[in-house]
Amino acid sequence: MTSETDTLIDVPTSPTSPISTDVLIIGAGPVGLFAAFEAGVVGLSCQIVDTLERIGGQCIELYPDKPIYDIPAIQSCTARELVDRLMEQCRPFNAPIHLGQRVESVEQREDGRWTVTTGQGLVFDTAAIMLAAGNGAFVPQRLAFPEATPLEGSHVHYSVQNLADFAGKTVIVAGGGDSAIDWALALRKVARRVVLVHRRNGFSAVASSVDEMRRAVDAGEMEFMVGSIASLSAPENKLASIEIRQIGGTAQIDADHLVVLYGLVADLGPIATWDLKIVGGRVDVDTSNYESSRPGIFAVGDIANYPNKQKLILSGFHEASLALRKAYTYAYPDKKRVHVHSSYDAGLAERIASGSAHQE
Amino acid sequence: MTSETDTLIDVPTSPTSPISTDVLIIGAGPVGLFAAFEAGVVGLSCQIVDTLERIGGQCIELYPDKPIYDIPAIQSCTARELVDRLMEQCRPFNAPIHLGQRVESVEQREDGRWTVTTGQGLVFDTAAIMLAAGNGAFVPQRLAFPEATPLEGSHVHYSVQNLADFAGKTVIVAGGGDSAIDWALALRKVARRVVLVHRRNGFSAVASSVDEMRRAVDAGEMEFMVGSIASLSAPENKLASIEIRQIGGTAQIDADHLVVLYGLVADLGPIATWDLKIVGGRVDVDTSNYESSRPGIFAVGDIANYPNKQKLILSGFHEASLALRKAYTYAYPDKKRVHVHSSYDAGLAERIASGSAHQE
Ligand SMILES: Cc1cc2nc3c(=O)[nH]c(=O)nc-3n(C[C@H](O)[C@H](O)[C@H](O)COP(=O)(O)OP(=O)(O)OC[C@H]3O[C@@H](n4cnc5c(N)ncnc54)[C@H](O)[C@@H]3O)c2cc1C
Ligand SMILES: Cc1cc2nc3c(=O)[nH]c(=O)nc-3n(C[C@H](O)[C@H](O)[C@H](O)COP(=O)(O)OP(=O)(O)OC[C@H]3O[C@@H](n4cnc5c(N)ncnc54)[C@H](O)[C@@H]3O)c2cc1C
Repeated sequence: MTSETDTLIDVPTSPTSPISTDVLIIGAGPVGLFAAFEAGVVGLSCQIVDTLERIGGQCIELYPDKPIYDIPAIQSCTARELVDRLMEQCRPFNAPIHLGQRVESVEQREDGRWTVTTGQGLVFDTAAIMLAAGNGAFVPQRLAFPEATPLEGSHVHYSVQNLADFAGKTVIVAGGGDSAIDWALALRKVARRVVLVHRRNGFSAVASSVDEMRRAVDAGEMEFMVGSIASLSAPENKLASIEIRQIGGTAQIDADHLVVLYGLVADLGPIATWDLKIVGGRVDVDTSNYESSRPGIFAVGDIANYPNKQKLILSGFHEASLALRKAYTYAYPDKKRVHVHSSYDAGLAERIASGSAHQE
Repeated sequence: MTSETDTLIDVPTSPTSPISTDVLIIGAGPVGLFAAFEAGVVGLSCQIVDTLERIGGQCIELYPDKPIYDIPAIQSCTARELVDRLMEQCRPFNAPIHLGQRVESVEQREDGRWTVTTGQGLVFDTAAIMLAAGNGAFVPQRLAFPEATPLEGSHVHYSVQNLADFAGKTVIVAGGGDSAIDWALALRKVARRVVLVHRRNGFSAVASSVDEMRRAVDAGEMEFMVGSIASLSAPENKLASIEIRQIGGTAQIDADHLVVLYGLVADLGPIATWDLKIVGGRVDVDTSNYESSRPGIFAVGDIANYPNKQKLILSGFHEASLALRKAYTYAYPDKKRVHVHSSYDAGLAERIASGSAHQE
């Protein structure tokens, strides 16, 4: 099955000069995607960035195949279908989506516009910022003990970039989800020894992968151990062995690499440093336009905080539609936007048909 | 084509004792229908009333066949399709819809619950009131001069109830839309003489009806006159003649009945007398729960007023979802409702499948 989430993604190569836009949308979850559509409706150009390598936010990362019942006028659709539908709806406006880009800093210039920079080197020049960042950027859940930190990237890994780096080595893979199992299976083909460690003999992964893993263990191609990573021994910053806590004792395994695949957790991360009023880990906004304490920066969807905020997708949609109308005033301070209902906006119908956000 | 708006409507006969419910939804426009769905989601029973004889509010009365583009995750659907989809979504909860019922008065009792009465004699006993009344009740646009008022129902009509009443009479039909043309065509079969009066020789009606009307005029079965109703002569409260203003003069026609079909206008009507804070003709609400100045009465959709309110269907949906969560506290003051996402709410999926709003 081809899904919109796998196709249609535009990853431009790093440009040398800043990318100029009316609105920068941070987050390609359901609310960020609808914000891109509403930007088109009100006549604003926009660009979207997301840390992840695919669009869809929580819907795709956490429950793609679950049916959602409370999207208005859609009796039931899976989270993946919702994202596909939102992509279809915003596609006519052709907003570029930059994946694998975590926004790190925002800076307001003298002229009121913003310079926004990602950790991966993209720079944007924008009139307004639409934070649709959910619970923050998704990052891999890390080991809880500090001695792992200096080994990150060399001996302790939270993703596998290049299988060849593990050729002939002893690799411990920790985790019980799809990626832990899939990477353990892939690593066994190049590594000298692979040990999968998970806290119980049960997995939250597709049955066929679990079966394949059990066959590989039976065939002696890899090992499986019930337990959890307790500590590392790494004299001179080189991993030597790993202590595994088991029921009734501990085991010690000599190892060259530890690959930790515990899943993703959300992290407000850099957003916490942008001088926004933060309440309960979320960005405080005014419900008349979902603007944060810094005029020009809006927060919509799960990242927004206001009295009685509900983390509902529907709420994020409403918030985005109001926020974009205010954002317009930053992009076009001298123009007066007159609201025309979508059903009577001949220009909109034409722009949707011809695929252009620009309104004269 | 059968549409949901024509079927599936439940019009109970007037009961002798009040109808008891958790929430009374006033208005069966898009927002009232979604409110009925959200009531089911949060576990509240509800009843819906609307003045009109059919559901759908503005979507059905004013632009049923126009495509709407700004409903999230629906690329385009006509206003009628939107209403059909909302009906489908709320149907599992089986909320009774009482049509042709205009809510006239609300009264809070000592125990905090409300007694709500319609002009047609229905009485409800409810814990909370959800006003989803749009711009107010739709009523026929009336003639602008006071001498018409005492003749209403006897000689001046704003709708046709029974064709037989016009048998053998001279009838003037005023208006240029579908109903004026359709009723003029129907009346010509029973009346002695039918004169259609419209201010210009052009109509906002389906082309085939206009063609049929022109053929009927050519065949001498009815007459058409360009002009507007200027005054009535009605000695002893009996219509005698009608003066019609035309370009460059007036014409006088002897007539027994005048049928005025100028379309519908919205009228806040009785709602204005309920002691609610009204701003700019709309009910002032708090954006944390869309409650009005009278606790227990909520206002959602076009009738709600708050800073920067946009009359968007999407906004009404969000407002309803927050309002229903607060309404729950009036219906079940001692229970604590815990939000479970629709996708993980096994009880909800079951209630949707089995068609019952009641939650244990
Ligand atoms: C299991 C589960 C079931 C749910 N079921 C329902 C349901 O039935 N109905 C419902 O209404 N809601 C449901 N929800 C809630 C719903 O998924 C969220 O409300 C919704 O995903 C919020 O959308 P969003 O776009 O605001 O944020 P998200 O979906 O969280 O997307 C935010 C995106 O922003 C990116 N991002 C964050 N920070 C940065 C940065 N600095 N730079 C670049 N990118 C960044 C993230 O990587 C992420 O992709 C459910 C949630 C869960 C977890
Ligand atoms: C031509 C046109 C095009 C539009 N296009 C769009 C669009 O593209 N996108 C968009 O988002 N919005 C659009 N809108 C606006 C949209 O239709 C409204 O926002 C929406 O209908 C509001 O829904 P509602 O349920 O709040 O009220 P309504 O649709 O007005 O329904 C209110 C109902 O309450 C009933 N009622 C009122 N008072 C009483 C009473 N006392 N007792 C009983 N019943 C009562 C009325 O009879 C009515 O049926 C458009 C509007 C128009 C006129």
